[in-house]
Amino acid sequence: MDFKIRAATKEDCKEISRMIMELAVYEKMPDQVKISHEELECDGFCQHPFFECLIAEVPEEHKSKDGFTVVGYALYFYSYSTWKGRSVYLEDLYVMPEFRGNGIGKGLLSKVAEIGKKKHCVRLQLSVLNWNTPAQDFYAAKGAQDLTVNEGWHCIRFDGQDLDNLADEAPKD
Amino acid sequence: MDFKIRAATKEDCKEISRMIMELAVYEKMPDQVKISHEELECDGFCQHPFFECLIAEVPEEHKSKDGFTVVGYALYFYSYSTWKGRSVYLEDLYVMPEFRGNGIGKGLLSKVAEIGKKKHCVRLQLSVLNWNTPAQDFYAAKGAQDLTVNEGWHCIRFDGQDLDNLADEAPKD
Repeated sequence: MDFKIRAATKEDCKEISRMIMELAVYEKMPDQVKISHEELECDGFCQHPFFECLIAEVPEEHKSKDGFTVVGYALYFYSYSTWKGRSVYLEDLYVMPEFRGNGIGKGLLSKVAEIGKKKHCVRLQLSVLNWNTPAQDFYAAKGAQDLTVNEGWHCIRFDGQDLDNLADEAPKD
Repeated sequence: MDFKIRAATKEDCKEISRMIMELAVYEKMPDQVKISHEELECDGFCQHPFFECLIAEVPEEHKSKDGFTVVGYALYFYSYSTWKGRSVYLEDLYVMPEFRGNGIGKGLLSKVAEIGKKKHCVRLQLSVLNWNTPAQDFYAAKGAQDLTVNEGWHCIRFDGQDLDNLADEAPKD
């Protein structure tokens, strides 16, 4: 199937927002999504954006059963390793179910790798859920290492009241 | 013990580089460190920096046995959650062993939380090694959740030839 990958614009945020929810449903945590398309517009398309995004589009004649031509996205940002330097972090990679198996996910992933390399990033990192074996197999087939299994890294988070408490206890300047 | 936390400057990069190596030795992976202080200067203090860093300093009269007054650092960058929005990611938090137990690590962590909150970040994330129970306990005592244990998230990485291969296969524009 013919498809095109391009950088997202502010005008794509409604479509990105729709697909973020579709992905969260797949990941069995739809109630976790609190972000609006207005926030995406603000955070991704301001002077110092918090993320960048690629969009996969199909021609009008291949639109989805619900009439969508934007059928996938990859949302990423730059991170930093104090051991290796510049890295790119892939927060979300998603292709609508009816468009899978056409190389769109692979195309989005490769494009993020290419963009990262152009910025001298030496790593591409991401997170997957332990029950999501299709995603794990997809990445492993392309050479990804599971750092949680191989080296024992765990993901840790502060949020809500715990984050507020931490911030409140910061030493005064 | 009296200490001060301040934003790192380009001139601190040699000290940061020294402590990055000390932390890697503690984490049992010193051969993994490939970054130089010149790269830190370039990546952290350019027009679009890849990271920000805080420094913990003690007065001259409390300098380390080797004569150092810069005794800890927290290196962080901004990330993004498509569910919750702006986040801050703490890549490294380190206090020299002879200065531990004085609240310096807690001070650095709280300061990163405070800086994140000022930028409207709703999460502070980081990674710990599964055998590093002192670090795990330190974060857990302040309310951190282990997302690998609680939700099953694994850390995945592409680098080296695998990253090159991905980038080479990117669809042409």
